[in-house]
Amino acid sequence: MKVSREKWEKNFSEWLDWVLREAEIYDYGRYPVKGMGVWMPYGFKIRQNVLQLIRKLLDETGHEEVLFPLLIPEDLLKKESEHIRGFEEEVYWVTKGGSQDLDVKLALRPTSETSITFMESFWVKSYKQLPKKYYQIVSVFRYETKATRPMMRLREITTFKEAHTLHETYEDAARQVDEAINIYKAFFDELGIPYMISKRPEWDKFAGAEYTIAFDTILPDSRVLQIGTVHHLGQHFTKAFDFKIQRKDGSLDYPHQTSYGISDRVIAVLIAINGDDHGPVLNPVIAPIKAVIVPIPAKDEETTAKIINYAKEVGENLKNSGITVVIDDDKEKTPGEKFYIWELKGVPLRIEIGPKELNNNTVYIKRRDTFEGKSVPKDKAAEEVNTLLEKIKNDLHEKALKFLKARIIYTEDLNEAKKILEERAGVVEVPWCGDNNCGLQLQDVTNARVLGIPLDEDKDVSNTKCVMCKKPAKSLLRLAKTY
Amino acid sequence: MKVSREKWEKNFSEWLDWVLREAEIYDYGRYPVKGMGVWMPYGFKIRQNVLQLIRKLLDETGHEEVLFPLLIPEDLLKKESEHIRGFEEEVYWVTKGGSQDLDVKLALRPTSETSITFMESFWVKSYKQLPKKYYQIVSVFRYETKATRPMMRLREITTFKEAHTLHETYEDAARQVDEAINIYKAFFDELGIPYMISKRPEWDKFAGAEYTIAFDTILPDSRVLQIGTVHHLGQHFTKAFDFKIQRKDGSLDYPHQTSYGISDRVIAVLIAINGDDHGPVLNPVIAPIKAVIVPIPAKDEETTAKIINYAKEVGENLKNSGITVVIDDDKEKTPGEKFYIWELKGVPLRIEIGPKELNNNTVYIKRRDTFEGKSVPKDKAAEEVNTLLEKIKNDLHEKALKFLKARIIYTEDLNEAKKILEERAGVVEVPWCGDNNCGLQLQDVTNARVLGIPLDEDKDVSNTKCVMCKKPAKSLLRLAKTY
Repeated sequence: MKVSREKWEKNFSEWLDWVLREAEIYDYGRYPVKGMGVWMPYGFKIRQNVLQLIRKLLDETGHEEVLFPLLIPEDLLKKESEHIRGFEEEVYWVTKGGSQDLDVKLALRPTSETSITFMESFWVKSYKQLPKKYYQIVSVFRYETKATRPMMRLREITTFKEAHTLHETYEDAARQVDEAINIYKAFFDELGIPYMISKRPEWDKFAGAEYTIAFDTILPDSRVLQIGTVHHLGQHFTKAFDFKIQRKDGSLDYPHQTSYGISDRVIAVLIAINGDDHGPVLNPVIAPIKAVIVPIPAKDEETTAKIINYAKEVGENLKNSGITVVIDDDKEKTPGEKFYIWELKGVPLRIEIGPKELNNNTVYIKRRDTFEGKSVPKDKAAEEVNTLLEKIKNDLHEKALKFLKARIIYTEDLNEAKKILEERAGVVEVPWCGDNNCGLQLQDVTNARVLGIPLDEDKDVSNTKCVMCKKPAKSLLRLAKTY
Repeated sequence: MKVSREKWEKNFSEWLDWVLREAEIYDYGRYPVKGMGVWMPYGFKIRQNVLQLIRKLLDETGHEEVLFPLLIPEDLLKKESEHIRGFEEEVYWVTKGGSQDLDVKLALRPTSETSITFMESFWVKSYKQLPKKYYQIVSVFRYETKATRPMMRLREITTFKEAHTLHETYEDAARQVDEAINIYKAFFDELGIPYMISKRPEWDKFAGAEYTIAFDTILPDSRVLQIGTVHHLGQHFTKAFDFKIQRKDGSLDYPHQTSYGISDRVIAVLIAINGDDHGPVLNPVIAPIKAVIVPIPAKDEETTAKIINYAKEVGENLKNSGITVVIDDDKEKTPGEKFYIWELKGVPLRIEIGPKELNNNTVYIKRRDTFEGKSVPKDKAAEEVNTLLEKIKNDLHEKALKFLKARIIYTEDLNEAKKILEERAGVVEVPWCGDNNCGLQLQDVTNARVLGIPLDEDKDVSNTKCVMCKKPAKSLLRLAKTY
């Protein structure tokens, strides 16, 4: 069942469900375990393209990919007390092997700080080996009690990219947090995903962290989704594991750590933010198919055969220019049916070739995002396709950025903040005194969530007052209706 | 602790443990869950290179990569009765989420026939959509009661490539079995892993299969390891799931399936079969580093600086020719220490550059497999490196093939068969009447395992008699001491 645009801006999760299944990206809701879905071939390719990007960025900055076991013994997971308190109610436990009860309960990893720190304590002995930057791309599990949603709130998060780094000093780790932020910026910029960067409030930082920096974006229904986090872990885990290294000055001390992660949500957002009544518009950067060629049959078979050959020739030229293209010459479907399918799949460009194009030695190229079409000489097709792909990439990014910026509103008036959040969702920025109590009260009063202190705004708050207590403001605070 | 060659031919698993850990490939035995290890960065790269090869072969033959959930509900896993009987005692069960007991026990997938068949029943309705060939590369779990071994007998198999295909008829599926065999042949040939192909006996086929074809190899201690299997599943699973499709003739019927898998064992074998006292010899096809350049310092600093520059220049040239090379200019290690490390890592070629090379405008290249060295003009270095890598690849394959062939012995004498298996392990081929009872008795008498009927031998058995019952033989039967 098709979901129209008007509707999906209000409640786009219905639209997303429709797209994910009908475009054969991710089959969700039919697999008989709640909160777990299947990556179908087309979706898997999108996922691979996204992962290739993040791998490149991490490898270039000296990160090394590893793979740790899924199962973490109970005592290991419980070593760091704040950490386990944060995850305790969300952990799946393996308690049986065959018909036997296991001696030690095994957790399906909710995240891997504990197992990685434990192994690092064997591998790293001296500051000379530092920094160490590991990452892995794995499934993690959370027994979510909130309503699950495809790719956005899952019980099996199948695409968890978690990085874990090790440093001699607190400052080194802080610098690594900055590097991680820059990596994620480059990643989201390349994908055309706009974001806000906020320092999460004390009460919402990662369980076992000194501080947490988060990336958030705004979905079509104006609600906010967290899409990436970076944590300074300090010595929390290394102390818990009694893991010391030799420092430059000869002393022994606990090293400092960071960790940072992104998940399936990145892919959900890529599909969610660019779309319309016809389905998603895939960013050319990650589209598995950049262009589809649809031959338009003529009235006579001879011309039709010529058109198909002509289409194949164009297809070959595009392939030789490195463009991933599909020629849809299925005889059992009409061009209209093909248009429907490929629009639903979000392929950025459609190339129509009919009797007119055959006669004029041209191709007709149509953009998926704007539905603008143009005729181009056949021998300019590859060049034009590349130009248009680049243009679509930039236009999608620009449009998404505009959408996000229009939904971040500054106000010094608490009632206005409440009203905006209630009526329009989106994000509100208010002056704040820095007191956690005021932050928590703000959450209660507005029935929204504090995202934290904006790190990407340089607004001067020196002459403003906290919206809650009216004391002088120290910074902005971001509030939002979130997922 | 180093393990010498003499020793590792007798009990090479000690050698393998030493290599995997010291070369920083796979950390096993320190992670606090039995049968689970950690892929370290160097090992992870080897693994990626192996996976890239199999992905290429599968993609080229129309297989599509997917990703299914890890957890399978108990009732789904138990749908096919033979299947669950085969796996029942090996399944890990998740029974708790947080502190709550789950309503339905969830299995960590031991393999994915059940979940994939279940989802296929939504996706495929007609013969027109067939064949369908899916694959995924995932962790699977087996609660092994036998002694676990790194990469060879694990409780978490982290690199399980499982393919699952769907066909209209039994014959189509049988042809798919043949295609799968050809894919695995190409895969193992490219990796230089010699193999035997056997049709497993009735009592040892996959739980829920019509028949099973297996690839086995022989390890340095002359014991046999299964490295790949291909199953014709018939309609076992589609019937259990009441999954019918429309056939070409308009009727509705259960489609036929195949499944085939390889695992971490492929990587274990790659490391295990090519090695010596110094460590493994990585096949250039999967070696993350093809050559290491070790500058040999001169007595004076000025010449040493020149040597390092010269080494960097050579390194750049090799990189520009697409050769992955590392320049080890660590000043805190002697050349001897570097030789030790890079030999242990199995890097196929070492390039030494010292005062002599600097003066003569040459490089000295040494093969890891034979330790043969030669001087080559600097401007021929890239060409010579490529030639030698190709040569090493071929020589390793040839040597391994010879090793395997020398350990397969044909005999018509039961006592000789017993003696060979007892004293030398390896593989024995004997004439067989085809009766399962004789096969099972043979296992008892020889205290070995039946691998099955050789599919890669065309020996004429028409004038021979079954070694067990002395009735006329119908085929050969392979027996071996196995892992």
